[in-house]
Amino acid sequence: MAVYTHVPAEDIDAFLTRYDAGRLVSAKGIAEGVENSNYLLETTGADGHGHRYILTLYEKRVDEADLPFFMDLLDHLGERGCLVPRFIADRDGKRLQQLSGRPACLIEFLTGISVTEPTAGQARAAGAALGQLHKAAEGFAGERRNALDLPGWHDLADKCGEHFDDIAPGLHRRVADELAFLDAHWPTDLPRAVIHADLFPDNVLMLGDEVTGLIDFYFSCTDIRAYDLAVTHSAWCFSNDGATWFGDRSRAMIAGYEAAHGLSAAERTAFPILCRGAALRFLLTRAYDWINTPPDALVTRKDPLAYLRRLDFYAKATPAELLDI
Amino acid sequence: MAVYTHVPAEDIDAFLTRYDAGRLVSAKGIAEGVENSNYLLETTGADGHGHRYILTLYEKRVDEADLPFFMDLLDHLGERGCLVPRFIADRDGKRLQQLSGRPACLIEFLTGISVTEPTAGQARAAGAALGQLHKAAEGFAGERRNALDLPGWHDLADKCGEHFDDIAPGLHRRVADELAFLDAHWPTDLPRAVIHADLFPDNVLMLGDEVTGLIDFYFSCTDIRAYDLAVTHSAWCFSNDGATWFGDRSRAMIAGYEAAHGLSAAERTAFPILCRGAALRFLLTRAYDWINTPPDALVTRKDPLAYLRRLDFYAKATPAELLDI
Repeated sequence: MAVYTHVPAEDIDAFLTRYDAGRLVSAKGIAEGVENSNYLLETTGADGHGHRYILTLYEKRVDEADLPFFMDLLDHLGERGCLVPRFIADRDGKRLQQLSGRPACLIEFLTGISVTEPTAGQARAAGAALGQLHKAAEGFAGERRNALDLPGWHDLADKCGEHFDDIAPGLHRRVADELAFLDAHWPTDLPRAVIHADLFPDNVLMLGDEVTGLIDFYFSCTDIRAYDLAVTHSAWCFSNDGATWFGDRSRAMIAGYEAAHGLSAAERTAFPILCRGAALRFLLTRAYDWINTPPDALVTRKDPLAYLRRLDFYAKATPAELLDI
Repeated sequence: MAVYTHVPAEDIDAFLTRYDAGRLVSAKGIAEGVENSNYLLETTGADGHGHRYILTLYEKRVDEADLPFFMDLLDHLGERGCLVPRFIADRDGKRLQQLSGRPACLIEFLTGISVTEPTAGQARAAGAALGQLHKAAEGFAGERRNALDLPGWHDLADKCGEHFDDIAPGLHRRVADELAFLDAHWPTDLPRAVIHADLFPDNVLMLGDEVTGLIDFYFSCTDIRAYDLAVTHSAWCFSNDGATWFGDRSRAMIAGYEAAHGLSAAERTAFPILCRGAALRFLLTRAYDWINTPPDALVTRKDPLAYLRRLDFYAKATPAELLDI
């Protein structure tokens, strides 16, 4: 969440001449999203009215080979009415450029703010937006493997090994037991689709109770569709520390998703297990980052135990408790 | 150059209700300026047209007691036609607030981009803008001590001590000799005024060759007025590494300042010495940061030797070389 590559404003101005975007009048490095460098640009606009764009430079965490998948997905979703930021083509139809030695794209700017403490109304809107996204994604031909799937969780757990217990005594055993449970119970016959896979409140732009944009698709991939709702549920329906589950948000989110897309009987039955997987996925990535980030680094380490507490909740939850609205 | 304090968007929205600013529609943390936290806000605007603001939260580096000086200075300058970002008063006339436990202010947003490789035309515009700022500052009653004056340089040099030679062999001796020279030759009878004291290209917003804003006044203070031109000269008229002096930028900047304000005969005579002081000031703060920042920290350390090279240049320069245009 920083600007990793400093791009001289003169270079941004020259870069923009490839596009019908007008001349640069402001460029601010913004702290946003995954480990990319992002600039919020303002231009005179092709029509003389001020226009804003996001300029993204891809750092090591995003694989350049994945960019066409993301670009095509957002085009597909945008054409079907989803409020997603489209990649903008230059006059030659090219969307992927090089700038300051990095792959770089000009991207639509969307207004809206990311809430920190969602209300039930906002959780409902997020659930509905996810359902609409799943509807719109139907027929999208692209595929991308989820590197953070069940085998990926095993890999991460192996890398953390004994260090889990530096975070909390007994965590190593707890993770091993949970992986064994998921190995035995993870569903294999649920519908798969392209999912967002990271729809935290950070990645939903809102005005009041209305969703104005879904952003940051850099984890999007092909996986169990209902798992996307489980990820979103784990991100929106608890206090930050995971200690409190908010039933009102939870019921509103499920109702929003049901209205926009719906869950099959098989998806409902599997939902608590999908939620356990979602909680474990964020527990694992946070634990890995915790173990591999020095405590005095400027980067804020996110508490892995906030997802252990969610996991504890989901391990005891019934489908009715989670899904009855 | 990061966002140190994360402010929930809901809190920014609530904060804005004190002002006639409309409702929040976008908030992005921006990497800008000294060690404050800055957000670029967009609101619906009091008139229903989109409007932008900077929200600044002051971290430890800015003393809250200095804020009224900065606020009054920018009001004074703005009223006299300088393009500076004004602090915005809420409906009760209050400009200083508290937000997320920090002193916080809503500030005008100015368009324009900061150049990285100034042209001579841009250096001329910067010199002229500095001269206009000095004209506009006349009659401003506020005073603020420059903590980075000659006694302050001695303090910094004492703190670095033997560690100077970890940066470059012989640097400790060189700094001591330069301080001795400045102790003997630093002018005491030149006009003093409120100065910007940090007018790097970063702090000048431009569109083409036109200055659209002077920003980041958090080093502004009372000191020798012509020293401000020396600081600006050292920042604009060299390659980044200090190895190359650009005579065209230098002549253009001086011409711009002469046209807008002018230098007295005494100021011209002292100018090379003022430039040596300016170069030493940035050499010292960079050396101090270099010594006190671990090499693996995420913060980029700026090379102190880039200012040693400027110092070497100024130590050999004549007033004619620097000032004849």
